[in-house]
Amino acid sequence: MKVIRDPLWNNIRLEPLALALIDTPPFQRLRYVRQLGLAFLVYPGASHSRFEHALGTYHLARRALGLLEERGDLKGLDHSLSTDIRVAALLHDIGHYPFSHALEEIGALHHEEVARPLITSGPIGDILRNALGADAPDRIMELIRGSSPSPLQGLISGSLDLDKIEYLRRDALMCGVPYGEIDADRLLNSLVLVHPVPRTPSTARRTLGIQEKGLSAVESLLFAKYQMYRNVYWHHAVRSATAMYKRLVSDALDAGALSASQLAGFTDEGLLLGLESKAASPLLKALRERRLFKRAVEIPAAELPSDAGEWIADDWRRTIEAENTMARSLGLAAGELLLDYPAKTEMLGLDLPVLRRGGIVEQLTRHTASGTINLPTLSEELYRSARWLRVFTARPISVDRAALLNLL
Amino acid sequence: MKVIRDPLWNNIRLEPLALALIDTPPFQRLRYVRQLGLAFLVYPGASHSRFEHALGTYHLARRALGLLEERGDLKGLDHSLSTDIRVAALLHDIGHYPFSHALEEIGALHHEEVARPLITSGPIGDILRNALGADAPDRIMELIRGSSPSPLQGLISGSLDLDKIEYLRRDALMCGVPYGEIDADRLLNSLVLVHPVPRTPSTARRTLGIQEKGLSAVESLLFAKYQMYRNVYWHHAVRSATAMYKRLVSDALDAGALSASQLAGFTDEGLLLGLESKAASPLLKALRERRLFKRAVEIPAAELPSDAGEWIADDWRRTIEAENTMARSLGLAAGELLLDYPAKTEMLGLDLPVLRRGGIVEQLTRHTASGTINLPTLSEELYRSARWLRVFTARPISVDRAALLNLL
Amino acid sequence: MKVIRDPLWNNIRLEPLALALIDTPPFQRLRYVRQLGLAFLVYPGASHSRFEHALGTYHLARRALGLLEERGDLKGLDHSLSTDIRVAALLHDIGHYPFSHALEEIGALHHEEVARPLITSGPIGDILRNALGADAPDRIMELIRGSSPSPLQGLISGSLDLDKIEYLRRDALMCGVPYGEIDADRLLNSLVLVHPVPRTPSTARRTLGIQEKGLSAVESLLFAKYQMYRNVYWHHAVRSATAMYKRLVSDALDAGALSASQLAGFTDEGLLLGLESKAASPLLKALRERRLFKRAVEIPAAELPSDAGEWIADDWRRTIEAENTMARSLGLAAGELLLDYPAKTEMLGLDLPVLRRGGIVEQLTRHTASGTINLPTLSEELYRSARWLRVFTARPISVDRAALLNLL
Amino acid sequence: MKVIRDPLWNNIRLEPLALALIDTPPFQRLRYVRQLGLAFLVYPGASHSRFEHALGTYHLARRALGLLEERGDLKGLDHSLSTDIRVAALLHDIGHYPFSHALEEIGALHHEEVARPLITSGPIGDILRNALGADAPDRIMELIRGSSPSPLQGLISGSLDLDKIEYLRRDALMCGVPYGEIDADRLLNSLVLVHPVPRTPSTARRTLGIQEKGLSAVESLLFAKYQMYRNVYWHHAVRSATAMYKRLVSDALDAGALSASQLAGFTDEGLLLGLESKAASPLLKALRERRLFKRAVEIPAAELPSDAGEWIADDWRRTIEAENTMARSLGLAAGELLLDYPAKTEMLGLDLPVLRRGGIVEQLTRHTASGTINLPTLSEELYRSARWLRVFTARPISVDRAALLNLL
Repeated sequence: MKVIRDPLWNNIRLEPLALALIDTPPFQRLRYVRQLGLAFLVYPGASHSRFEHALGTYHLARRALGLLEERGDLKGLDHSLSTDIRVAALLHDIGHYPFSHALEEIGALHHEEVARPLITSGPIGDILRNALGADAPDRIMELIRGSSPSPLQGLISGSLDLDKIEYLRRDALMCGVPYGEIDADRLLNSLVLVHPVPRTPSTARRTLGIQEKGLSAVESLLFAKYQMYRNVYWHHAVRSATAMYKRLVSDALDAGALSASQLAGFTDEGLLLGLESKAASPLLKALRERRLFKRAVEIPAAELPSDAGEWIADDWRRTIEAENTMARSLGLAAGELLLDYPAKTEMLGLDLPVLRRGGIVEQLTRHTASGTINLPTLSEELYRSARWLRVFTARPISVDRAALLNLL
Repeated sequence: MKVIRDPLWNNIRLEPLALALIDTPPFQRLRYVRQLGLAFLVYPGASHSRFEHALGTYHLARRALGLLEERGDLKGLDHSLSTDIRVAALLHDIGHYPFSHALEEIGALHHEEVARPLITSGPIGDILRNALGADAPDRIMELIRGSSPSPLQGLISGSLDLDKIEYLRRDALMCGVPYGEIDADRLLNSLVLVHPVPRTPSTARRTLGIQEKGLSAVESLLFAKYQMYRNVYWHHAVRSATAMYKRLVSDALDAGALSASQLAGFTDEGLLLGLESKAASPLLKALRERRLFKRAVEIPAAELPSDAGEWIADDWRRTIEAENTMARSLGLAAGELLLDYPAKTEMLGLDLPVLRRGGIVEQLTRHTASGTINLPTLSEELYRSARWLRVFTARPISVDRAALLNLL
Repeated sequence: MKVIRDPLWNNIRLEPLALALIDTPPFQRLRYVRQLGLAFLVYPGASHSRFEHALGTYHLARRALGLLEERGDLKGLDHSLSTDIRVAALLHDIGHYPFSHALEEIGALHHEEVARPLITSGPIGDILRNALGADAPDRIMELIRGSSPSPLQGLISGSLDLDKIEYLRRDALMCGVPYGEIDADRLLNSLVLVHPVPRTPSTARRTLGIQEKGLSAVESLLFAKYQMYRNVYWHHAVRSATAMYKRLVSDALDAGALSASQLAGFTDEGLLLGLESKAASPLLKALRERRLFKRAVEIPAAELPSDAGEWIADDWRRTIEAENTMARSLGLAAGELLLDYPAKTEMLGLDLPVLRRGGIVEQLTRHTASGTINLPTLSEELYRSARWLRVFTARPISVDRAALLNLL
Repeated sequence: MKVIRDPLWNNIRLEPLALALIDTPPFQRLRYVRQLGLAFLVYPGASHSRFEHALGTYHLARRALGLLEERGDLKGLDHSLSTDIRVAALLHDIGHYPFSHALEEIGALHHEEVARPLITSGPIGDILRNALGADAPDRIMELIRGSSPSPLQGLISGSLDLDKIEYLRRDALMCGVPYGEIDADRLLNSLVLVHPVPRTPSTARRTLGIQEKGLSAVESLLFAKYQMYRNVYWHHAVRSATAMYKRLVSDALDAGALSASQLAGFTDEGLLLGLESKAASPLLKALRERRLFKRAVEIPAAELPSDAGEWIADDWRRTIEAENTMARSLGLAAGELLLDYPAKTEMLGLDLPVLRRGGIVEQLTRHTASGTINLPTLSEELYRSARWLRVFTARPISVDRAALLNLL
């Protein structure tokens, strides 16, 4: 076992297969892709990369599997299922674009799709096939996409996935905010494989759930996620920088200075430095000198008609047109006004089976656990209060709220 | 300035007046009164005392006053107001009974009343009068009781009092739970003196409020408080030990082995060791050997009729009778069955003025801040889900839920 | 597995045998014996007890054994050896007197000897014999005394014992000083069973050593130990309080108010409260009101003739006589002047086998590892600079350095 | 005051002048210069930049000045001296090359010299002159170079400079190693302005010293610095990556693909990406894919003749020739064998005045403080044991120790 030091988990122990995967160029690229995109312009400490996060997720997978094994939950399962989980945890973010999630909002492929060729072919594909069999890359991809029949699927994708625990804690640490505290030990320690309810043929297979004693740890996960969205991920200045970045990349694509298929091969700095030479723009220059666009108007989701404005996160073409129209009407040039409405995000997935003290399994959605807060309801409420529709402009300017509402 | 080390705040700087107060016997007694009562039987690390907590509250008062001064909020205020605050912070818990709050539930005087003679007479009264004037002890008492006209009153008692920030963080640290994280720096940094609304003659005086940018720190305070109640303060085993302690002291008082007026003079161990020699009982022996009573039945507050059972926390005589009646009906001896329903606690006080970015002051109760979670509503909801009515018994036994509901 | 929360290690997992041992009265007594004796009068946070420390040592034993097993070092060893280690780690301090080590300096039995009857008879003896065989109590005692033939002996007593890692880190945390940082993860991860050198029949048995990659972690242990002795354990005010305590207990024994055989049965507060009623003294009153004796003169060990004054730590009768003589000569009453010279302590034991990268085992004493600091030499140097000979007096008074040197 | 969050110091408060300086392009460049150069290839968390470090150093300057002021040490000093210190702390690293210190070892200008034009002209020069007077840039430069007559000079450069405290703690945090713990609070709290000894006309001016009570904090600084050099800065793989980087940049300069005067304008990634297009080399490719050269032989400084090999750190031309000669003799190509011997570094400067309890000032060099470890001696000893002469090669190969010694 090789030990790597880490600011969050201290010592991460790596098996030889993990080391081999890490030593490939696609994985090494993750060192140069910041975990939180442009957030480092607001939280200077947020310079951490997908690389550390991937190691940390692998680490949590090892710990979770160790605890499940100690409790006997893995008895009868093929040993390779565990290896697949560790590998999927390590590789789950291999397809991230420069600055992580932002470019998915302009219609680029989702990072899990970008991951496919990186995992099924090239050096990673070779390593996986040699070590774990010819269909290993496909098994890993299924886990990453959340479509695997593995009873352990929930560790990689779902309400309680390890990815979430990792990024909330790491992002909070690196941003220097006291908002990502999660009772990770108890959460991992409460994971359990159960038969989901209602019992149908399709639920014959066990799935990942949580013991009742872990519910307060789930609450801590929800509180942490809400606080991180409110204070970091959806912080107005972070969203402004992200909007600038999306638009400048989109313009470069439209101008033919860049092709969409190249995007996933870039590092953060590689992309921006390339654009500086091939597609310099006022937006890019402003971003590099940290002259972020200012809020011209903003409205919380709770004060918007239901479903209003969802196209802003979904239909990039329409968004650009709306930006340009609104810019013109205010005497601004194209690209000097940006619209932002973060894509809808579930604060807490609702598909969580709970194993009660008495041995009964309940689905968290269907029935509020007696004597606990109503997590699904609270989750929805918290989510709505953290999300804002915003207009950013290159120069301080005041935009009428009605004008914005009109647009929707 | 004398520096004292502290596990939570690292370095606490003490002025000479504070040192003089600390060096009195009533203050030194606090070294021997555990902050969390019997919780150390469940969370072994919770051996910290009111002494450290008092130093920490003083420390936060110094920091809060320093920040208010830096921002100019103290301009025009008499300098002695600040000194009073620091002294009140230091002395606010001087009247605590052995094992802190529990004995207040059996009808003993509230600790703020016990504090009066300790602050107005004896060595502490002398020091205060010499240093701060003849009426200083009364001024300090008013602050501690929350009835002072000082614009800084809110630092000592109220929604945002420093006491709360201190104990949530210290208790979480010592218990070893990741549940007390509060954005204390931002909270302190957001405190502001404002004119409360609506503006009436009685509100001519400024009062402590919070700037809008501090609202997410207030949310962190609420989440932390809820989590600490749910997981520590109202943990079933902590409540069991507390119920045992209340009953055994009550029995000793009834038996005349102890008089109520002595109670506040004891240390934790002084009281129990005294009772061991003068009023040994099975309850006391069980507590010392950590044979805690078990839950026979429990019902969350949310499933109880509104206001049902409030007498359990309020009317101690009726509670004992109910316990004895129920015990008899189950073939148990008096003292072998205990009822527990923690006294109602506000998760977040509702009297908080918020200074909005535009300069307007709003009362948090009256109007939900645009784009934030509804803190008062959430607070009430969280509170209800953490509170349980419980029956504890000396031996594992199953009590019918209906029987308990009948009793109410 | 039962999980207990802990401020240092967060989650401690306990096997049923450990739980049974913890639930005995002799073990529960440890809750009421402070880990650092009177240090809490100087470092208010130091209210932690032997109980938490014992749990933590058990926890480290589990982790160390887990890592040794993962590496294959335990192959061929009887499984019961590991259980013995965990049990010995849990019980190693069971015999501590009130306020921990101080009373050993007045000639009371060493705590490891006090432990014998507690481990071989009574509830703990019963549990051990039932679970681990008739000779289990003796095996455990051998481990605690450092005389066991077990290859794992070094985990319980020796240069690298887990006890040391635990107390340095816990004491630093609780005192609030940044001095106990140890690279515990790497230290545990570097432990290895090796054949000691030189190879003789008596060394046929493997013993605990450290891999070369762990040497910087050993350095961190040495630095931490030195810093804790200098700043906490041998802090002048801590030593003053300890000297007062030793003398007042000694006086009570001499006066017959207490018998030596009872000592180990007391808790901290039980002893002092008992003495308050049976053997009140000015010393005791001063200690309770925290009026600590002041330094009248002090001399660092490095400035003393070699071996001078060692009797102060060794010969209690002679020390008391010297104290009384010196007191008289200064017009002080018996008990108003105290001599203090902490018992000699090795900063780092010298019996540490190191497994070099090339596979060779070297004894750390005999040969300085190439390219590392000379740990034994540094250890001796650090030790001498932290130790001071001191005279404490009830009232501030200046004692001549020559007078003290004369005495030696 | 603007507040910026930080993973190390949590909340950094910035005055308007600091904000204006930060908002300049030369300062923003620091966001893209890693604090620890290539160490992130070994410690993945070490992705932090000079930007955060500069903010942190400014933060410590504010705290140190605040404490000196509270104690009255700044009385009589011109207020502008304090402002200069804060500005110098913020700007002290403005001239760093890509990947920080490495390029200084190939003969490029020292970063303090690179800083001169950046501070005296351009936007930073303008801001300084406007805010602090025409000679402000020169005053700041003097402080950064350590040649200022300011009594506060020692805060910026010297044995106790704040820069050192900042980087040791931040680097340890980000690397995830428990080795950078420093008693920073006590160190800052012990700083004092004293008249140096011996008293001569040239020492009429006060200078920064430390109170005796701060000596154990100085020890913690020394231990931390040694441990960080041994485990991080001079870690063999970090040195290997650094040697590769030095050689590849040197080759690019020699090949005319780059000019020395441009170097300081680059960011880390900007330099490497530029070289990839203009001066691709096997070394660069290996570095990007993290195929680090391996140790072929290594010898600790303590086993080398005194002063042997110092030219390796000093005379870059000679070093390259030696590398090439040695490579040839082993059948390696030029650039496939690298020599490394880190430039001599003082572990602890020796110019530290100590203010003893009695009021006497002693120079730490001249006289070992009574009852403390001999810091200068220990410092020298520690330093020698952390420094190694090494040969790295592209392929695993074994080089004879004698061959290396011969070369020196």
